[in-house]
Amino acid sequence: MPLRLDSKAAGFAADFTALVDARREADEDVSRDVSAILKAVRAHGDTALADYTSRFDHHDLDVSGWAVDPADCRAALDGLSTPLRDALELAAARITAYHEKQRPVDSDGIDAAGVRLGARWTAVDAAGLYVPGGRAAYPSSLLMNVIPAKVAGVQRIAMVTPTPKGEINPLVLAAAQIAGIEEIWRVGGAQAVAALAYGTDRIKPVDVITGPGNAWVAEAKRQLYGVVGIDMVAGPSEIVVVADGQNDADWIAADLLSQSEHDPTSQSILFTDDAAFADAVEQAVMRRLPLLSTQAVATTSWAANGAIILVRDLDEAMPLVDRLAPEHLELAVDDPDRYFAQVRHAGSVFLGRMTPEAVGDYVAGPNHVLPTGRRARFSSGLSVLDFMKRTSFLGLTPDAIQAIGPAAVALAEAEGLPAHAASVALRL
Amino acid sequence: MPLRLDSKAAGFAADFTALVDARREADEDVSRDVSAILKAVRAHGDTALADYTSRFDHHDLDVSGWAVDPADCRAALDGLSTPLRDALELAAARITAYHEKQRPVDSDGIDAAGVRLGARWTAVDAAGLYVPGGRAAYPSSLLMNVIPAKVAGVQRIAMVTPTPKGEINPLVLAAAQIAGIEEIWRVGGAQAVAALAYGTDRIKPVDVITGPGNAWVAEAKRQLYGVVGIDMVAGPSEIVVVADGQNDADWIAADLLSQSEHDPTSQSILFTDDAAFADAVEQAVMRRLPLLSTQAVATTSWAANGAIILVRDLDEAMPLVDRLAPEHLELAVDDPDRYFAQVRHAGSVFLGRMTPEAVGDYVAGPNHVLPTGRRARFSSGLSVLDFMKRTSFLGLTPDAIQAIGPAAVALAEAEGLPAHAASVALRL
Repeated sequence: MPLRLDSKAAGFAADFTALVDARREADEDVSRDVSAILKAVRAHGDTALADYTSRFDHHDLDVSGWAVDPADCRAALDGLSTPLRDALELAAARITAYHEKQRPVDSDGIDAAGVRLGARWTAVDAAGLYVPGGRAAYPSSLLMNVIPAKVAGVQRIAMVTPTPKGEINPLVLAAAQIAGIEEIWRVGGAQAVAALAYGTDRIKPVDVITGPGNAWVAEAKRQLYGVVGIDMVAGPSEIVVVADGQNDADWIAADLLSQSEHDPTSQSILFTDDAAFADAVEQAVMRRLPLLSTQAVATTSWAANGAIILVRDLDEAMPLVDRLAPEHLELAVDDPDRYFAQVRHAGSVFLGRMTPEAVGDYVAGPNHVLPTGRRARFSSGLSVLDFMKRTSFLGLTPDAIQAIGPAAVALAEAEGLPAHAASVALRL
Repeated sequence: MPLRLDSKAAGFAADFTALVDARREADEDVSRDVSAILKAVRAHGDTALADYTSRFDHHDLDVSGWAVDPADCRAALDGLSTPLRDALELAAARITAYHEKQRPVDSDGIDAAGVRLGARWTAVDAAGLYVPGGRAAYPSSLLMNVIPAKVAGVQRIAMVTPTPKGEINPLVLAAAQIAGIEEIWRVGGAQAVAALAYGTDRIKPVDVITGPGNAWVAEAKRQLYGVVGIDMVAGPSEIVVVADGQNDADWIAADLLSQSEHDPTSQSILFTDDAAFADAVEQAVMRRLPLLSTQAVATTSWAANGAIILVRDLDEAMPLVDRLAPEHLELAVDDPDRYFAQVRHAGSVFLGRMTPEAVGDYVAGPNHVLPTGRRARFSSGLSVLDFMKRTSFLGLTPDAIQAIGPAAVALAEAEGLPAHAASVALRL
């Protein structure tokens, strides 16, 4: 049974705080194992990669092949049904269109003191993409990670993916073909992340690594942060739905279950001001669960992490939502902008009754790689900016250095840095 | 003696690669100590803070006071000489003006399929600023960290700084007053970073932590990345100067020494196409070193990490500079734009003979918190964006979901996620 809370009940504040503070992330301490793997790959390169792949993925890279043959990607795409191919291509086109608007604008100008000041954005040279094997091998995630890099102008994209016993998901290969990926290595786990960061004889190093993975992959990225850029630390996914009583309980139940079916640690929370609707949604969830092929996962997640919270009115819900800083927020009401204006912390917001979160997972255009675990308080979804960096620049004329140089000399002297002061003073 | 290389010499490629790969960062393994400190502060809060402060900073917070009295900041500012106060205020005004142009623009529109799509930027609620005690307590760094947060619209800024034996640098307090910081805690080290991230009874938690610090502080930030946002992992600072023979050797020597004097691990590298000028600079460095109060540090750094590289022409230098991806790059030539156009990786670029790097440290306007250790390949200087996050949003009409919903259903079914499919299909 999901948690049921009522904002009018005694003890609500404490109960809600407990919900906010509940940690759903596994405390698996893999840091020592990962650290050893990173060291081994750094020292022994491809030899270490082959050893780990044999041990963990049960195939011999020299037999199965280190890289995926681009012909296999073309064949996978050709093998798709037309509706599925069309769907992937629509998704790719819409994701591209949305991300193109994220391209940053350079600046260059001269201010009143005669100082030229500006900023120039450039793409990183190479990006690495981790694609999980097995259940979580989603073609949609591949598109969501690669397209921002392509739009940024990244010249080289290297994908790594484990192929347990040599097997690989053809849908993922088809998506790779649509996304234009030409370099795919059949390695996974922390060892693949290490290879991307440090480089090996076969795999050239990259500058940024993104993409989802298990605890080992996440820890490898965390440990390599600074050697390369990474996307955010990712935790279990979550949805908060704010809905009045005018919604179809079945729709809202499906929305909640679309998070619950991801993983036993996923979280789905409904805020509503209508007690009868709350009951109807809870019953609808129970009716829908047995219909799902993902029933086992969804049932576990909904029982362990689901919550239905009754509020006096939906305005009361909004500061509570902000405390959760959810990855996904649905505002299933007639006037979503009224409530959206009150939101400070959320990864992505789905406005109105006709905007289920799942449409954003696939085809709407915004990125579905979003901050989880209350990280929307300080971080954003994956974007073109994650694959670019900004170089500031300045240029002074003789007049300009006369105008602002003396202040620099004064500050350098006060900070006890005489060469700083001299480098300016000599030019005055 | 600094390293001397000549691009025409046999073995240059290998020698330059060794220079690129040389690690100047300390290998101090403080991760276990830091991990223990973080756990203690998380569990015991202010009690742990007081214990560590007594042990490491040798004062009793209950006696010396936990927080700096705002009156002390006002008094410190009032105590400054007029030129120094004017210099700090000019710096603050120019840094503010530059960073105001970094404020991102929101988007909101409806595309051809009738889908409303947009992105909204908001500031984090609270930022924490680490300010070192002792030698590296620089008022300029305080301004460079606080002003982007203020421009972003951050409502609460909490500063922490160690006050060994209770002492604090009045210049730092004056800068805090100019920057409008009202919350300053007399704690430092990994324990202060932990307090900012987790919160204690006295210190409320923040969302982002920035600011320089020693190996313990840097490791604490690294371990807490994900609990909070942080600025980049910072290493020793560095400058690359590209100069033809038409420069004053004394000016360029001062520029090189302005990095060398920071720390024994700092690095200064000159590229020039003029062998006589290279010699003149080396001699000028030797002449200037004894004049510096920072002579000991600068001499060590220049001998251990300095380099003068003779190239056939300055165009040859540019791909080499890109491999170094320097924090600071001076282009001391008549036509700096010609060379700047060839730069892909640099934190900040200083254009022309009249633009010493030190002017950017203090008063030019761009941020002096910049990526070091080749991290300009994938990261940028501190900016307003580090204190903001982006919420994407979308809204569908009944027509819009008819247009793009079926593709989402097809993809959800292919990925084996039936509740995702149902949440869209029910609305079609």
